[in-house]
Formats: sequence, structure tokens, C-alpha cells
Amino acid sequence: MTTVFFLNGPNANLYGLDPSGTYGSESFPAIKARCERHAERLGLALDFRQSNHEGVLVDWIQEARGSAAGIIINAAGLTYTSVAILDALLAFDGPIIEAHMSNIWKREPFRHHSYVSRAATGVIAGLGALGYELALTALAHLIAETAE
Amino acid sequence: MTTVFFLNGPNANLYGLDPSGTYGSESFPAIKARCERHAERLGLALDFRQSNHEGVLVDWIQEARGSAAGIIINAAGLTYTSVAILDALLAFDGPIIEAHMSNIWKREPFRHHSYVSRAATGVIAGLGALGYELALTALAHLIAETAE
Amino acid sequence: MTTVFFLNGPNANLYGLDPSGTYGSESFPAIKARCERHAERLGLALDFRQSNHEGVLVDWIQEARGSAAGIIINAAGLTYTSVAILDALLAFDGPIIEAHMSNIWKREPFRHHSYVSRAATGVIAGLGALGYELALTALAHLIAETAE
Amino acid sequence: MTTVFFLNGPNANLYGLDPSGTYGSESFPAIKARCERHAERLGLALDFRQSNHEGVLVDWIQEARGSAAGIIINAAGLTYTSVAILDALLAFDGPIIEAHMSNIWKREPFRHHSYVSRAATGVIAGLGALGYELALTALAHLIAETAE
Amino acid sequence: MTTVFFLNGPNANLYGLDPSGTYGSESFPAIKARCERHAERLGLALDFRQSNHEGVLVDWIQEARGSAAGIIINAAGLTYTSVAILDALLAFDGPIIEAHMSNIWKREPFRHHSYVSRAATGVIAGLGALGYELALTALAHLIAETAE
Amino acid sequence: MTTVFFLNGPNANLYGLDPSGTYGSESFPAIKARCERHAERLGLALDFRQSNHEGVLVDWIQEARGSAAGIIINAAGLTYTSVAILDALLAFDGPIIEAHMSNIWKREPFRHHSYVSRAATGVIAGLGALGYELALTALAHLIAETAE
Amino acid sequence: MTTVFFLNGPNANLYGLDPSGTYGSESFPAIKARCERHAERLGLALDFRQSNHEGVLVDWIQEARGSAAGIIINAAGLTYTSVAILDALLAFDGPIIEAHMSNIWKREPFRHHSYVSRAATGVIAGLGALGYELALTALAHLIAETAE
Amino acid sequence: MTTVFFLNGPNANLYGLDPSGTYGSESFPAIKARCERHAERLGLALDFRQSNHEGVLVDWIQEARGSAAGIIINAAGLTYTSVAILDALLAFDGPIIEAHMSNIWKREPFRHHSYVSRAATGVIAGLGALGYELALTALAHLIAETAE
Amino acid sequence: MTTVFFLNGPNANLYGLDPSGTYGSESFPAIKARCERHAERLGLALDFRQSNHEGVLVDWIQEARGSAAGIIINAAGLTYTSVAILDALLAFDGPIIEAHMSNIWKREPFRHHSYVSRAATGVIAGLGALGYELALTALAHLIAETAE
Amino acid sequence: MTTVFFLNGPNANLYGLDPSGTYGSESFPAIKARCERHAERLGLALDFRQSNHEGVLVDWIQEARGSAAGIIINAAGLTYTSVAILDALLAFDGPIIEAHMSNIWKREPFRHHSYVSRAATGVIAGLGALGYELALTALAHLIAETAE
Amino acid sequence: MTTVFFLNGPNANLYGLDPSGTYGSESFPAIKARCERHAERLGLALDFRQSNHEGVLVDWIQEARGSAAGIIINAAGLTYTSVAILDALLAFDGPIIEAHMSNIWKREPFRHHSYVSRAATGVIAGLGALGYELALTALAHLIAETAE
Amino acid sequence: MTTVFFLNGPNANLYGLDPSGTYGSESFPAIKARCERHAERLGLALDFRQSNHEGVLVDWIQEARGSAAGIIINAAGLTYTSVAILDALLAFDGPIIEAHMSNIWKREPFRHHSYVSRAATGVIAGLGALGYELALTALAHLIAETAE
Repeated sequence: MTTVFFLNGPNANLYGLDPSGTYGSESFPAIKARCERHAERLGLALDFRQSNHEGVLVDWIQEARGSAAGIIINAAGLTYTSVAILDALLAFDGPIIEAHMSNIWKREPFRHHSYVSRAATGVIAGLGALGYELALTALAHLIAETAE
Repeated sequence: MTTVFFLNGPNANLYGLDPSGTYGSESFPAIKARCERHAERLGLALDFRQSNHEGVLVDWIQEARGSAAGIIINAAGLTYTSVAILDALLAFDGPIIEAHMSNIWKREPFRHHSYVSRAATGVIAGLGALGYELALTALAHLIAETAE
Repeated sequence: MTTVFFLNGPNANLYGLDPSGTYGSESFPAIKARCERHAERLGLALDFRQSNHEGVLVDWIQEARGSAAGIIINAAGLTYTSVAILDALLAFDGPIIEAHMSNIWKREPFRHHSYVSRAATGVIAGLGALGYELALTALAHLIAETAE
Repeated sequence: MTTVFFLNGPNANLYGLDPSGTYGSESFPAIKARCERHAERLGLALDFRQSNHEGVLVDWIQEARGSAAGIIINAAGLTYTSVAILDALLAFDGPIIEAHMSNIWKREPFRHHSYVSRAATGVIAGLGALGYELALTALAHLIAETAE
Repeated sequence: MTTVFFLNGPNANLYGLDPSGTYGSESFPAIKARCERHAERLGLALDFRQSNHEGVLVDWIQEARGSAAGIIINAAGLTYTSVAILDALLAFDGPIIEAHMSNIWKREPFRHHSYVSRAATGVIAGLGALGYELALTALAHLIAETAE
Repeated sequence: MTTVFFLNGPNANLYGLDPSGTYGSESFPAIKARCERHAERLGLALDFRQSNHEGVLVDWIQEARGSAAGIIINAAGLTYTSVAILDALLAFDGPIIEAHMSNIWKREPFRHHSYVSRAATGVIAGLGALGYELALTALAHLIAETAE
Repeated sequence: MTTVFFLNGPNANLYGLDPSGTYGSESFPAIKARCERHAERLGLALDFRQSNHEGVLVDWIQEARGSAAGIIINAAGLTYTSVAILDALLAFDGPIIEAHMSNIWKREPFRHHSYVSRAATGVIAGLGALGYELALTALAHLIAETAE
Repeated sequence: MTTVFFLNGPNANLYGLDPSGTYGSESFPAIKARCERHAERLGLALDFRQSNHEGVLVDWIQEARGSAAGIIINAAGLTYTSVAILDALLAFDGPIIEAHMSNIWKREPFRHHSYVSRAATGVIAGLGALGYELALTALAHLIAETAE
Repeated sequence: MTTVFFLNGPNANLYGLDPSGTYGSESFPAIKARCERHAERLGLALDFRQSNHEGVLVDWIQEARGSAAGIIINAAGLTYTSVAILDALLAFDGPIIEAHMSNIWKREPFRHHSYVSRAATGVIAGLGALGYELALTALAHLIAETAE
Repeated sequence: MTTVFFLNGPNANLYGLDPSGTYGSESFPAIKARCERHAERLGLALDFRQSNHEGVLVDWIQEARGSAAGIIINAAGLTYTSVAILDALLAFDGPIIEAHMSNIWKREPFRHHSYVSRAATGVIAGLGALGYELALTALAHLIAETAE
Repeated sequence: MTTVFFLNGPNANLYGLDPSGTYGSESFPAIKARCERHAERLGLALDFRQSNHEGVLVDWIQEARGSAAGIIINAAGLTYTSVAILDALLAFDGPIIEAHMSNIWKREPFRHHSYVSRAATGVIAGLGALGYELALTALAHLIAETAE
Repeated sequence: MTTVFFLNGPNANLYGLDPSGTYGSESFPAIKARCERHAERLGLALDFRQSNHEGVLVDWIQEARGSAAGIIINAAGLTYTSVAILDALLAFDGPIIEAHMSNIWKREPFRHHSYVSRAATGVIAGLGALGYELALTALAHLIAETAE
């Protein structure tokens, strides 16, 4: 069974708890479960992780080399600032989907520039947890295409 | 049956014909047919159109008020330059998905800024015609949510 | 009787219908009627038009050469982006009033720069349909002055 | 009878005397008289003042709180530089019209940005002393509307 | 006989009529006739068109695919703003000459950047209608070279 | 007894009266009284002044040379624009505390740059009248340190 | 007894050891002890921590949710670069004081912009360890106010 | 005897007293006396004034119209910020010399841009009180030339 | 016989030798010969020179005053950086054609700005040695026009 | 024997494995071994480390205080973004060499600015593993010089 | 007798010949003679030179080390672009006066920045050949002061 | 024996003589001798030159084509401004080392951008004359590698 990584950056674990409601009302464990169910339907083994540490995310992306066929990443606040994550992604040669719960271009200007986009195959944003499911669907297709 | 508009901007009709290959090898009529089949599966009546004229796109977005439950728009080259399209979209109150065949943030810097994003609920880019299908899926969900 | 053109740009036809209320609650046909009554009081023949098409607006400004003594223009979203409209206005040698329903300098930064201002004699903004009447009054004076 | 303030900034007292002719040929006392006559026709008590001192203008705007129903202000050279005037205007809750004799967007780039616009209801520029009369007309309407 | 398109953008039809004289004193029909005579000498069938509509220009550039061996384009005011025209030109694989009557780098700063240049083989500017003839000569050579 | 100056810039006298509530609900006289009581507790003679005039503030800062051991200054709207105040402060050689009622970095971008900071020992912002008391406490300490 | 967190970023542990003297001569343990004594006087339980790791600081801010009534943070070098810390702070709903030993606006330009300020209630800078005590005093007041 | 104005801006009265020594060691009264002696040698009646108030400087420049044949101005901190002073100078039609004690282009970047330069005939900077004498010499020549 | 100067800047002598092929495969002597033949056909005496030294180019442009009726200049790398060459060209009062082998607007951004354009009558770029011939043709016409 | 630290940032451990080949074909362990042999020749004890974690790099730089005579650092992706690393280096008082495998100024613009350079004695880039050996040679010399 | 260098940059030899009249009507030899007479009155041996070559100007500034007590330099077009001249001037330790015939801040924006100013003691601009005499006077004073 | 060029730009001949000490205390002839000795050890014939003239440096780089196997260049002040030197280097196909005595990124901002870096294989800066020796070592390796 094909393994994919879904890597979540800083504070993603607070989704659904944030009083401002930018990230919807579904809790992070609920989102994780929803993604796992969707991955199962797609025949993918999903490794869904979260860290507040840039270095840990870089470690995981490196780990994906050899153990995962594709990566979905919501680097959260590190999206806008981390060249280290970009460099790790550039060294991964499977498909990569950049995902964001919110539409980052409707938010503060410093969220309008993403380093992750430079390495991503595709980008899905603003569609909440539904967008995460779509990212999994997309990844399944991209992996299948490559496998042909 | 719920109607949705899928509006394509300038030169989208050349997809698959462009020698540089930025937009894949599927022809525009083939993409249209694929979207129509996917919409049918989702129970949506799809009105799929293309124009090279900004004014026509604005007319169509205005027409959507009252006749469509949601809009998918790939404004193509007008994405980066048209406040008129933005203003039309801001006056539409259903969900809007911004779609791009290519990952625009991997291309020339003038394609990194989108006026459409300011009005869109969500954005899907870089996933080719598959991304168009995902946009339809997302729109179906967003319309259903609103209907609840 | 002296003819003047009042040219309205993209989405102006939605005034009064826009849920965000930026442009007040008077409908576009009502604004048109109000301007026509005011023009009549001033002894002007008013040709009040609207288009979502930049090219049509350019055609109309060219048509004004020889048929109109002055122009009022609210280029709406094209105000900020259209050099073509600017060039057409620069080739018109009667007085030109730039009009905006809303105070554009209180809105998003991309609305703070107007190409139209480079060709306009005067600018009136933020005063809603009342501002349109004042623009007509101003135009009547400017035409009378030129005639002297 | 409703009182309104018409506040003029630095060097406005030289209008009509300036050899470059940017501000027309009507002298400042003539403009004042013309505005007073127009205000009288509108049933407004006009308090028309001029100062070269930013602090005096701030004092006057504060004085308007409680003594004037609206303000017209041509802050002249302070338009582009005075946050102090902006802050005073933001603390005034009646309607405010920003007025300029000349079309400031046809002049040097440093005159294209106005702090006053951030507090103004409406803006009238480029129409000379006629524009001042229109500003009074507009203010009369805005005060009447508020009174309703 | 080889066909080439000479496409003119907004307001080019006013050349020779503009009071400011930026574009010389030859009328647009005279320029057209002069270009047709020159094309005839070069053995080219010239299709010389003008439109104020960006969308029409995009349509014509698309039409050139398959019907013209090369394009000369003076996109006029759209030169500086239209990504749609750029994208259409990028999808044309014959030689393209960008032509301007005036030296655009001696004019306002917003005319110093051209989207058309990104797709053009060569650029000729500032030489009036003579420059148009030189553009035809150049195009004839470029087509002949390709044919070899 | 050691004298210190607390200098307040334009519109500070409106604190507590401003309808937008940016500056809290305590009136300016109340804030003054509160600071005087706090200074008394600290053994400082407080000279608390306010002016809407940049020149008066410069005069006062110059007056502090020789008559005050330290300065607290909230230059209000002049914070962002006055090099004259900066130059006066640079010529004062006791400790200087820059104080702001509101957190200026959460407000409009033009309030994110302070000329006063270039001359200040320390900065306290966003803590309302409490911050003013803390500024006095800090100044007392800094004066005592210098005296050692 | 109310708990507050005082979180220190990278290299804060070197205070007093740095040869350039930017951060004074008091050692970090001495500063910690001084803050603990001051907190005790204020009736606060102080949890004073330092880390060189952005991720650890984010973890701690998240930990504060539920265990601390307020946060003082000197994010040191991460102040200028960490959106992850900003996002964690935005999800904390008690009062937050941003503290800096030095006056960061007198230092290199890249230290003039703080992400932390966007989430902070108040800011105290340039007052050394005394500023830390003032931050504690301020936090005690803000917590008390909220409790009312 | 020809009268000239020498106008000094904010803090110029502190020259020679400033501990940083940017402005040399000669006191302001000494500089004034030196200029008066030099003017006398040149046969000029010198009116040497200083104010910390922008408005007063504007008043004086207006007063110069009709009473002075030329102006020397060191606007000090207002050099970089005052459009009001620029506008007053633009309305003066005799020669104007901009003078600075220090070489402002060796100092902070915000001192590298002068509004006064836009109205000045000539500029002399960095030469201390000697430069003031040279400015007087230059002004005497310029007035003599005009008189011819 | 009318003399014209064709001045070539640094490294132009390497054309045809450059391995990257930006400047085509024709050698510099071959280009020179081609230009001389074309000039002969046009009845012009061509003085074709090249230097790697900015100062020599300035000397030659000065020499053209009185000895040449027009100048063609490809300043090569100095195009983007030399105000000295611009100033020399501004002091020449015959027609000037700026020529470039390559389309400089398709290359690195620092090649998109030309000082030479500010002094040139016309610009021809991207057409290789053919463009040089066209420049000669254009110059012959411009000289003839002036002579009328 | 003198100890030096050679600290490598995120993804340096992938050198030689990266498919794009930016960093050459030598593997990271091979580079490490090569550096150790070279250090031995120079009589230096080399402590060669790598981490993907900014915080760990800061910890190590702090550890170098007292245990290492000099530092070589290739901060990789953190070079461009980490003020925390800069601050740690500024508190180290031995010589520091900044090293990069690739010539970072030939790569994307965001790699053209280095925070590390502000603290480094010297910089060596673009010379692959050879550059690492040169960095060691340089460090040996700098330490010896200091020791004199 | 003390020697001073007066170094003139590119195209200064054309002064008085330039049709646009920016540099007055006095010819360069006349200006030279005037300066020599003035130097003689001041007891200075004047070495007055001009070159169109940046390298020659650098050579001359180096030559001044040891042979001249001070330098006056009008680097003309190189003022805005030459770091080489700046570096040469920085290595000269006598007084340096930067002189310009015209007021460079009233001309094109690229003339508003001078590299020479960073090395100059004082600056005199906009006063034509009179300014050159004043520069000599100033230099004589500065040399005398140093000699004391 | 393999020949390499070491080209030094303006003012490099003053190294060791500059009072500010930016470039160390070794004189330029001493540095030259040291490099020649080191080259000899490496088996390289070193041609070490210096010029203050950009054009001479371009001539020399062109001369290197065919006569030198590699180039070391310290373009000094021309590093930041000369596209002509860049273009010459781009046409050289052996290895190129950019060398600087000082760490240019610790100096004024205009020294932080190098045109030379765009053509250089590697860069060595901040290591004084030692860095020159390292550059020679590096060049010897790069030439040997190419020769394999």
C-alpha cells in the first residue's frame, strides 16, 4: 500500500480551538480522522503528523525520501519564512501538494508569499478540511500517473 | 438541478495547443467534456464558457447573479490585471473557486499576484484538468453547505 | 443644446444592488434618471451610458470627439488599470470630470492610483449620486467658460 | 442657522498672487467672498479661515467639535504631511469635505498622497473656486441628510 | 503570397488627429496605405487592423496561428497592461515585431515597461511611420530566414 | 526636588472623548491628575503639558535643557513626521521615554515608524494611562542611576 | 496564586556576557532572580523560561493556554522573523507584553519590524531589566482589570 | 540698501551648544553677528531670524514678498518634511539659497531628501558658518545680476 | 557626402565569438562590412568604431558635434549605467538611433533600463545585424527630413 | 590542539544526493571525511556537525564560546532568514568563516542576502568541498594571527 | 604656494556650448580662466583639469595625494554612478569640495543621489561659475584651518 | 606552464596606504609579490595587473581569452557598477574567482550587490591577502579539474 505524508506546521494542532475562527470549528483530531478515512477510501496509507518545530518538519521531509510516494504539507506560519523547508522539499522527487485551511491571500500581506509554492506541484487553499481531502485525492492521482 | 458557471479567460481555448506545454496536452474541448462529465456525477448543471474579452467575463459574472449557485473562474491573463472582474465577483454572493491549470507561483513574478483571490472562497492551482474536477467537487460541497 | 457624455465603467450597473453597500442604496436606473433631471435643469443634453467593456468605453470617448462638449467618467474598476482609456481621454480636448460614488482613498490601496486623473480637469469622489449632480454642474460651468 | 467651517492651510492666502498660476487668478479675499455668498444661498453660516500653522488648524478642527455641523478643508501643503490634522479630523464626527483648487494628481508625485482623504467623506479637486462652491453645496446636503 | 498581420491597439486610429502631436501628423489611413504599399514591394500580403478592444486583439493574434507567417503589433495603451495579449503572442510561433510610433522611454514612467517585449523577436520605436516600414522589412527577412 | 517634563502632542487633549475609543475612556485631565499623583509618590516634580503645535513642543524640549532632569514624550501624530522634534530631543542629554497610549504597531502602517524612537532611551506603548505611570517610574530610576 | 509566563528567546541566556554590551552587564540568572522577586511582590507566580528553539517557544505559548493568565515575551532574534510565534500568540487570549532589553529602533533596520507587536497588548523596550519589572507590573494590572 | 532675509529653522538656535558637535562650536549669536558683518561688507541689510515653528517660517517667507530681494534659508529639520515651506518659497520670485551647516548627505538617510532644494537657486552645505558667508556673497551676486 | 557615426560599446568586438550565442554567429568585422555596404547604398559615409572605454565613447560623441550628421549607438553594457554617455548624447543635436543586437527586455532585469533611450530619437533592438542596417536606413531618412 | 567547529545547517546532509546537482556529487560523509583529513594536516581538531534545527545550531554556536577557537558555518537555508544565528555569532569572539558549496549570488534572489555575513570575518562560496578546505586553511591562519 | 586640484568630469568641456542651456552661457575656457584668476587672488596654485574618462579622474585624485592640499571636484555624469571615484576620494585626506554648475536636485531623479557627497567636506551647487569661485574660497579657508 | 590573470580594479594600488585601514597594512607591491610566490608554488604563471580604468580591465579580460586558463578579479569599486566587466567575464569560458580584501557585506549597502558574482565560479572575501592566496589555490584546482 502506498504511503503518503501529511505534514502540519506550527499551531495547526489548535485548529477549531482558535477563538478568531480563521480555521473553522473542526478540531485537529477530527480533521486528522477525516483525512485518514479519506485516504483509506483512496487506498493510501496516510502518515499524518504535526510539529511546531521547523527542524522536525525538515527531518520528516527528509524521511519521506524513500518512505513516502508523495507529501501534502501545510507549513502554517513557516510557509512564509522557511527556506529550510523549501530546500528539503526541493530534494524530494515525488509530487507535493501545498494545502491551507484558509485563503491566505485574503489575510495579512505577509501571508501572500509562500516559499513552499516554489517546490509544490499544486496548491489548494481556502477550502478548510474539505481542501485536505481534495489534496489527498489529487495526490493519489499524481502518484498513479507517475506509476504508469 | 443546481447550475454552476465555469468561466475561462483569454487563451484558455488554446490549452493543449501551446507549444511550450505549460498547460498540459489535453485540448480545451476535452477538458470541457471532462468537466461536464464530472459535474453530471456531482448532480450539477455546468455552464462552461470561455472568452478572450474582459467585458464578456464581467457580463457573465453579473449574469450568474440569480442564475448560478456558484462560480469557478480561471481568469487566465486577466487574473493579474483586472479589477473589473474582481468587482464583479465581489458583487456575487455564492461560493467562488479560483482555478489555474499551472502553479502560477512557479512562473514569472507578475503572475504571483491575483486580484481574483480577493473574492474567491478557495483556490486550486497547478493540478491541470484534475484541479478543475476538484474545483467542481469543492463547489458542490460549498453549495450544499450553504443550502443547509 | 449642448451634449455631454456621462460614461460609466464595469459593474456600475449594479449600484444599489451590491450587498456590501459601498455604493449606496440608490439603483443605477434611479441614478441615471436623477442625473438626467439635473442635466435638464442645467440646459444640457445628457448621454448617460454604461459598459463592462474597456474597448466600448474607448470607442465612446472617441465618439465624444465632435459630438460632446464635455465628459464625466466613472471608469470604475478600469480607473486603476486602463492606459487605453487614459489615452482616449488625452485625445479629447473638452473638459473632463472624473467621478466616483465612493471615496476611493478610504478603500484598498490598489484603488488609490487613478490613470483617469492624469487627463481629468477635476475630480469628485465619495459623495454618491449627489457627487454626480455636482459633476454635471461643474461641467456646465466649464463648458460655459470655454464658450466665452 | 447651521455653522460650517471652511479651513484653509498654508499659502492659500496667496491664491491669485502666485505667478505660476497653478491656483487661478481669483484672489483669496475674492474666493472667500464668493464662498460666503454661496453659503448664504444655502442657508449656512460660514466660518472661513486661513492659517500657515499646522497647530492652529488642529486647534480649529478641535473647536469645530460642538460649534460646527461640518468642515470643508483645503490643508494645502499640510495635506501630504500632517498626521496631526488627520487625527483631529478623525475625532470630528460630522461630514468633512476635502477640497483642492488644483488637480493634485496632475502635479508632483509627493502631492498624490493625502492624509486628509482618510478622514474625509468626499473629495473635490481641480475645479478652482467653483469646486469650493460645490463643496459647500455637498456639505449642506450631507448635513441635511444627517439631520433627517 | 505570404500573409502578415499588423495589429494596432486602442486609439491608434486617432494618429495624426491628436492635438498634442505625440504621434506625428500623418493620419491613420495614410499610415495604413503607406504600409500596404511597402508590404507590396516586399512581396507580403498585409492584413492591417485596428481595435480599441483587448479581446479583439487577442482573437486576432489567435487567428494568426495558421493564417499569418508573422505579426507586427503596436498594442498602444495595452502594451503596458495586458497579460492576455502577451499570453496570446507567446502561443504564436512565428516572428513578432513590437512597433511604437513614439519613443516610449522618453514618455511617462508607466510607458517604460512592455509586456509585449517578452514575446517579441524585435522592437522598433520612436521612428513614426518610417518605423512601421522598417518593421515590415524586418519581418520579411525573419520569415525568409525561417523558411530556409 | 527633581523636575521632569511630560510633553503631549496634538489631539492628546481629546483622549477619552474620541468616539472610536482608540485611546480609552479616561479623560485627559484625569490622566494628568493620575500622572501627577504618581510623580508625587516617586518624589518627582511633574510638568505635564500639551500642545497641538510642533513648534511649541520644540520650544518646550529646548526649555527642558537646564530645567528638567528627564522627558517623557508622547508626540502623538508628530511622532511619525517631525524631524524638528527629533533634533530637539537629540540635543537634550538626560533620559527620554517615548510613551504611547495605544500599541501603534497594531494601527495603520504610517504609525509604525517613529522619529522619536531614534532619540529615546526607552519606549512604552499600548498600556494606556498605566503606561504613563510606568514611564514615570522608569524615568525616576534612570535619573537616579545617572545621579549615582 | 495567578501564574504568568515570561518567555525568553534565542541568546537571551547570554545577557551580561556579550562583549558588545548591548544588553547591559546584569547576567541572565540575575535578571531572572530580579523578576522572580518582583513577581512575588506583585503576588504573581512567575514561570521564567528561555530557549534557543522557535518550536519550543511555540510549544510554551500553547502550554500557556489554560495554565497562565498572561505572557511576557522577549522573542529576541525571532521577534523579527517568526510568524509561528505570532500565530501562537494570536491564539492566546490573555494579555501579552512584548519586552526588549534594548531600544530595537536604535539598532539595525531589520530589528525595526516586530511580528510579536501584532499580537501584544503593550510593548516595553530599551529599559533593560527595569523594563522587565515594569512589564510584570503592567501584566499584573491587566490581569486584575480582566478579572473585574 | 537691499534687504535680504536669512531664515533659520528649528533648533538652529542651539548651534554650538549641541554636545554631539554636528554643528561646530560657534554659538548661534556668534554666527548671526558674523553674518551681519559679512552682509555689511556686501552692502546688504540682513534680517536674520530663527523660529522653531513651521508656520512662522511660512509667514516670514510670505513677508519677504515685497520686503526682501532674496532669501537664505536653513530650514533645519523642516527641510526634509515641509511642503508648506516649499510652497511658500515657490511663490517668492527672487533668488533663494538653501544653506546647511553640515553635509546632510553624510548623515542619516532621511536627511538626504530636501523639499527646499526644489525651490532653491543654489545649495551650500557642509561648510559651517563659512558656508553662510558664502551664501550671502552668492545672494549679493544673484541680486545684482537680476538688477542689471 | 554625409558622414554618420556608428559607435559600439564594450565587448561588441566579440560578437559572433561569444559561446552563449546571445549575439548571433556573424563576427564583428563581418557586421562592420555589412553596415559599410549598406551605408554606401544609402549614400552615407559611415564611420564605424568600437571601444571598451566609456571615456572614449564620450570623446567620440563629442567629436560627432560638427563632423557627423547623425549617430547610431549600441553602448552595450554601458547602456544601463552611463550617465556620462547620456550627457554627451544630449549635447548632440542631430538624430540618434539606439541599436541593440538582442532584445534587451527578454534578458536580465538590469538590462531593461537604458540611459541612452532618454537621448535617442528611435530604438531598434532584437533584430541582430539586420537591425543595424535598418538603423542606417532610419538615420538616412531622419537626416534627409532635417535637411528639407 | 586547537578545536574548531564546522557547523552545517538544514539539508546539508543531503549533499551529493540532491537530484538537481546544485551541491555537486560528493556525499556529505565524504565531505566530512575530507575536511577532517585537511584539518588534521593543519593541526586542528575539527568538530564537524550538522542539524536541521535552527535552535540546535544556536546552541552549538553558544557551546563554541570557551570550547572552540573559531567557527566555520554553512547555515544553508537559515543563512537568509535567521537573526537568532546571527545574534549567537555576534556573541562569539573568535574568527568566523561563512562557507557555501554553491555561488549563492547565481541562484534565486532570496539567496542573495545573508544574515551570517554580518558576523563573519570572511566568506567563501561556490567552490564546493574545495572551498571547505580553504575555509579551514583560512581559519587556521586567523587563529594563529590572533594567538601572536 | 599651496596647490589645489579642480577636477572636471565628462562633458564639462562643453559648458556654454550645450544648446539646452542647463550650464549657462560661459564657455569652459572662460570658466577656467575665471577660476585661475580667483585662485590667484586667494594665493592658491590652481591645477584645473577635465577628462571624459573615469579612470583618468581616479588617476588624478590619486596624484593629488602628496601634491595637492585640497580638491574641488565636479564629477559631472560620474557623480551619480562612480564608486571608483568615491573610493579614490575616501583615500585623500585633505578637504574636498563637491561643486555643480546646476542645482542637481531640480533635474531628473537619477541626479539626486551623489556618491561624491559621501567623501566631500562641503557641497556647492546651482550657482554656476560663481559657485566655482565660492568653492575655491571655501577650500582656501579649510586648508588654512587645517594648517593652524 | 599555465598562465592565470589576477586583475585588480581602481584604487587597489593604494592598499596599505589608506588611512582608514579597511584594506589592511600590507602594501600593494607586497601583496603582488606574495601572490607571485604562491603562484609559483602552485606551478602557475601569474600575470598580476592593476588599473583604475574600466575599459582597460575589459581589454584585459578579453585578452585572457586564449592567453589565460583562469581569472582572479577584484574589480574594487567597479564590482558594484560595471556591466561592461560582467559582459567581458561572461564571454570568458575558463574558471573565474571573485576576490575582495574586505568583507563587502559588512560595509555600505551599495557594496552588497556585485555584478561580478553573476559570472564568477566562486567568491572569496574578507580574508585580506590570505584570501588572494586561497583564490590562487582554488583556481589551480579548478583548472586541473577542467583539464582532466
